[in-house]
Amino acid sequence: METAGSRKELIGTAALDTIGMVIAGIDETLLENMHVDKKYRALGILTSRCGAAGQFLALDDAVKMTNTEVVTIELPLDAKTWGGHGSYAVIGADSVEDCTNAIQIALRLTDKYVGEVYMSDSGHLEFCYSASAGKVLEQAVGAELGRAYGFMTGSPAGIGLVMADNALKASPVDLIWEMSPQYGTTHYSNEVMISFKGDAGNVWEALMAGRATGLDLLKSMGNEVVSATEPYYDDL
Amino acid sequence: METAGSRKELIGTAALDTIGMVIAGIDETLLENMHVDKKYRALGILTSRCGAAGQFLALDDAVKMTNTEVVTIELPLDAKTWGGHGSYAVIGADSVEDCTNAIQIALRLTDKYVGEVYMSDSGHLEFCYSASAGKVLEQAVGAELGRAYGFMTGSPAGIGLVMADNALKASPVDLIWEMSPQYGTTHYSNEVMISFKGDAGNVWEALMAGRATGLDLLKSMGNEVVSATEPYYDDL
Amino acid sequence: METAGSRKELIGTAALDTIGMVIAGIDETLLENMHVDKKYRALGILTSRCGAAGQFLALDDAVKMTNTEVVTIELPLDAKTWGGHGSYAVIGADSVEDCTNAIQIALRLTDKYVGEVYMSDSGHLEFCYSASAGKVLEQAVGAELGRAYGFMTGSPAGIGLVMADNALKASPVDLIWEMSPQYGTTHYSNEVMISFKGDAGNVWEALMAGRATGLDLLKSMGNEVVSATEPYYDDL
Repeated sequence: METAGSRKELIGTAALDTIGMVIAGIDETLLENMHVDKKYRALGILTSRCGAAGQFLALDDAVKMTNTEVVTIELPLDAKTWGGHGSYAVIGADSVEDCTNAIQIALRLTDKYVGEVYMSDSGHLEFCYSASAGKVLEQAVGAELGRAYGFMTGSPAGIGLVMADNALKASPVDLIWEMSPQYGTTHYSNEVMISFKGDAGNVWEALMAGRATGLDLLKSMGNEVVSATEPYYDDL
Repeated sequence: METAGSRKELIGTAALDTIGMVIAGIDETLLENMHVDKKYRALGILTSRCGAAGQFLALDDAVKMTNTEVVTIELPLDAKTWGGHGSYAVIGADSVEDCTNAIQIALRLTDKYVGEVYMSDSGHLEFCYSASAGKVLEQAVGAELGRAYGFMTGSPAGIGLVMADNALKASPVDLIWEMSPQYGTTHYSNEVMISFKGDAGNVWEALMAGRATGLDLLKSMGNEVVSATEPYYDDL
Repeated sequence: METAGSRKELIGTAALDTIGMVIAGIDETLLENMHVDKKYRALGILTSRCGAAGQFLALDDAVKMTNTEVVTIELPLDAKTWGGHGSYAVIGADSVEDCTNAIQIALRLTDKYVGEVYMSDSGHLEFCYSASAGKVLEQAVGAELGRAYGFMTGSPAGIGLVMADNALKASPVDLIWEMSPQYGTTHYSNEVMISFKGDAGNVWEALMAGRATGLDLLKSMGNEVVSATEPYYDDL
């Protein structure tokens, strides 16, 4: 067995058990089974046990900055002991270098963006803001290309509903969708989630209102609430 | 950020990471997305990470005792490190006071009723008995209004099957449904569950037979089995 | 309440919170609800919180060696704190003795076969090889009766994809299916899985290539990787 880190596909790891890899010249039978039309010469993979919004936001930026395309974006139900999901994203390109660059960027940004994932023994919260949504956010969550986008989720699910109510009352944004355990989510996670778009200032204001609500309510459940890395919306 | 507990929507918390909240005048766009026909002035929310039968039984009693109606009852797959589910229930009323009363009652009863949730590192069991099912149990689990109702679940799933067999052999009750991971449940929890109705004495007898079976089998897996709060069927 | 172990249905337990039980003369209403055409006099149950490939492989051998038939094979999403699944399998026979023999064999082999389940705090891997697939593997995973069969899964899901690519490149086998969180799996586990068949030597070579890849990548995530019992493919 080779020693850890010697595997040629490995690009690196990031917070929330995220790992980035690149495949050169993927096996053709395998590619056909993945329902991909295009024969990419290289695939980049960003996959995690916990969290998805932060990783997808990071990959959204990475795809914007490189010559790569989205192949698949999927949400497993995992999140270790939390009632949320992990992430599985594959991008494609003509060259291994482009995929490698994109995955390296995504790993760096994941460490930053998952700072807005908050967890306690009683539940979790996740926030995501993009001033200009790209193709990953368009495919993963129905964002409008080039427009400001906001996402928030709260667990247990009822906390997400109260967050959503406060967010939408705080600022005039367009609700893209609301999902609860049995409506909209495919995987019955213990969350109410909303996606919304609008003017950048309004999206931001709605997000901050939902975030204050969620942090208050999760803290009221009695267990310590911590960020996955470092909160960074406070500094913006 | 406000300090814990100062959030105006918060009513209180209960066992198994349960939280109760009330929303006054919910955002209209959000309400439409929740597929609710009626424009309730107030919503009450009972939501948890773990357990559902106890919370739904508590809310069933609370709705009977107050001027409130069921809006949605959903089952996320969560339960922390157990293979079961959490709960997400929303009720509606014309007044914030009615919702607040109902959620307060439901929180108090949750602490009592989840005493019949048993957990070990190897699995879990859940039991629920109502002498006269109300609208929450009708919507959540197909109980017959006003009739005695029994529910039991066991995990890993096979334990639930042996419990069900012993329960149905012990007493003449009507089986409402049997669910296993891939049949009936929408969320592939690691459980076999049954719902049944009948004369109160028979429903009780079936429940006790299944309960004795489940506790025995879960204990035989070698890890300590504990109640979420205090067992209370022993005292009835 | 009876003391642990005295329950008549209990046959025994095995690794990964696996329990084996037998029911004599199951309740008829219950059997009808399980969508089983045949009225078996006895049912054998093998059910676990974690792992499925090892248990199904064990049961496959057990059914081959006894006069029993497959009733249902189901995959719950559980696996405690891992992003995989547990297992729920029921077999039937005309005699309690046949079921008991089969479940005893399956429990013994489970302890051996789940040695090829590897876990760390960051994810898990599972490997399964049969030189000649039987009816359990046919029904559970689409194996071809009597032909060599290989299965592998990796979590977080992206690791499973890189494993699959290396396996298929290593040896000429026939891919039966590839599943990712939202395609093929019904339960959105955090895995990419493949099933393949072919000449025994080729199936083995593909499996070993995927196994080396998966162990490397999971180790690179920084947490200790351990077998559920003892690795045993090294000794073959």
